[in-house]
Amino acid sequence: MALAEFELIRQYFTTAGLTFARPGIVLGPGDDCALLELPAGTQLAMSMDTLNQDVHFPAGADAAELAQRCLRVNLSDLAAMGAEPLGFTLALSLPAVDEHWLQGFSEGLATCAAQYQCSLLGGDTTRGPLAITIQVHGLVPAGQALRRAGASVGDAIYVTGTLGDAALAVPYLTQQPGFDMTALSAADRASLQAAFYQPVPRTEAGIALRGLASAALDISDGLASDLNHILQASTGPNVTPGAIIESARVPVSDVFARLVPDAEQLPMALGGGDDYELCVTVPPQHEAQAQAALQALGLKFTRIGEVVASSGIMLRGSDGDPRPLPFSGYRHFGDNGNE
Amino acid sequence: MALAEFELIRQYFTTAGLTFARPGIVLGPGDDCALLELPAGTQLAMSMDTLNQDVHFPAGADAAELAQRCLRVNLSDLAAMGAEPLGFTLALSLPAVDEHWLQGFSEGLATCAAQYQCSLLGGDTTRGPLAITIQVHGLVPAGQALRRAGASVGDAIYVTGTLGDAALAVPYLTQQPGFDMTALSAADRASLQAAFYQPVPRTEAGIALRGLASAALDISDGLASDLNHILQASTGPNVTPGAIIESARVPVSDVFARLVPDAEQLPMALGGGDDYELCVTVPPQHEAQAQAALQALGLKFTRIGEVVASSGIMLRGSDGDPRPLPFSGYRHFGDNGNE
Repeated sequence: MALAEFELIRQYFTTAGLTFARPGIVLGPGDDCALLELPAGTQLAMSMDTLNQDVHFPAGADAAELAQRCLRVNLSDLAAMGAEPLGFTLALSLPAVDEHWLQGFSEGLATCAAQYQCSLLGGDTTRGPLAITIQVHGLVPAGQALRRAGASVGDAIYVTGTLGDAALAVPYLTQQPGFDMTALSAADRASLQAAFYQPVPRTEAGIALRGLASAALDISDGLASDLNHILQASTGPNVTPGAIIESARVPVSDVFARLVPDAEQLPMALGGGDDYELCVTVPPQHEAQAQAALQALGLKFTRIGEVVASSGIMLRGSDGDPRPLPFSGYRHFGDNGNE
Repeated sequence: MALAEFELIRQYFTTAGLTFARPGIVLGPGDDCALLELPAGTQLAMSMDTLNQDVHFPAGADAAELAQRCLRVNLSDLAAMGAEPLGFTLALSLPAVDEHWLQGFSEGLATCAAQYQCSLLGGDTTRGPLAITIQVHGLVPAGQALRRAGASVGDAIYVTGTLGDAALAVPYLTQQPGFDMTALSAADRASLQAAFYQPVPRTEAGIALRGLASAALDISDGLASDLNHILQASTGPNVTPGAIIESARVPVSDVFARLVPDAEQLPMALGGGDDYELCVTVPPQHEAQAQAALQALGLKFTRIGEVVASSGIMLRGSDGDPRPLPFSGYRHFGDNGNE
């Protein structure tokens, strides 16, 4: 790209809506480095995710929606640590300069940046196949971050929101045979579009669960796979925790319940990725308080099971007998690189 | 990529040589976020750079050398702020799993991480065209970061090391007609290879220049272009600073002086990119101390000119008359996206 093209690109990322003052940000974009100064008693939580065309999103995806998705999936990692968003860096590789695309992308980012008070801190723009890497940075009181390690036998397992909506959306959005978006109602189309492109980072929920949840993560690879990460991280010298999930409790949305055949609902809700809901474990003595906190936020918060002493994840159906999960996680666009 | 492939990749990035304890790192890779806690009185400096195949490096580049280059160009940004390296995050997109390549890449990273005491904090691995995004994080005492803004009329302009070596290396490394690497001596080949793949972040120099330099940056796009960034950032309501460069003072290496025709030396030394030397401005009252500090480090530190009141960059040749630069920066692989 010629110098003039980079100047042009720069204009789209120096708007007031993207870069704004926040306590903790000493210096934003434009120098060799950005500078942060943490308020006393806080720690900085950071997470980085890359989205590549044809791997994490289809070619031709709307630029504004894509920007939203990129920032939101990163913000979800902050939420899973109980951190409050502060700012983000952006590495954008573009095959060519397309002003219409840049305008949309920049507006999508700005909308999300304003909503979550997460300011652009800097980054890099290069020529290359369309790829977006974002690193988010957030603040959490020292010692209060929600980690994956920490679940104990007897803790309840909760999830926010509903599961499986993004997994349902993908075959429609990628126009796979038998999944005709135009055959859906406008409301259903909007639901599926939002489930994939506008996952809701559970920022307030993560903050509310500080000091209450014993372990937490966001569900990006599917509940079955991600819950396993909590169990593995929480394994100690004398215990290899497992989990029992009550199949009747797994929360799904109305559109999911209507569109997905009964037999496929559990595999898709537990094995599908890209939910970006939180999965947390809560010790019995904190359950009432955690439920009240999430209710105050107006957020669905469902007890789906319990951490148990036997290893592995079991599913308990209507007959009451726990059985090993009959399926494992599966991947959109053939990839499973996100955490 | 299948799950097993990601587990395989993960092994290469969880070696002790890549992730190690440093004061300030509370939690490294493996959770939703890494956690940092800054020592009292320090700020966090952060910079992000992407390297894409065929844009920033040729296809088939040695994995270990590529890893070194990626981390080093990022560390150079920390050096330019006077920050001490702490840790880095890595977003790696790979077209396929190649264990030989991963082994080399991981070893190259670990060598550099150990040398600069910069620990791997986390990141993301995805499928996609070969691309590497690194974000580095460093510590600097509050208020002491070296910024681009701050140069005043009368300040001297200094550069570390020599200029133009990487620009000279590129046509050889990419086997352009007339640039036959095999015709060079082993020592010259090694010099050029190192100039491109192992640029030396001037970490100690940046730290030594805290409180002495009025402005600083690292030269990635070529001195002429980057010095202009300092001048623009230092422009105030009443002054638009310019610069006079003494052409006889521009420092070049022995191999550069031998291989580059006389008429092409200045354009290449001032216009070529990828030097990763520091360009700093120093007020007269700090010059002696800055020179002594850099001499103590054994690092070449050359006064190449001065900040003046007229705008633009002028070159003063042997006849003593300053003339506008007769050339502008040029780009390797057609790109100029780095800062």
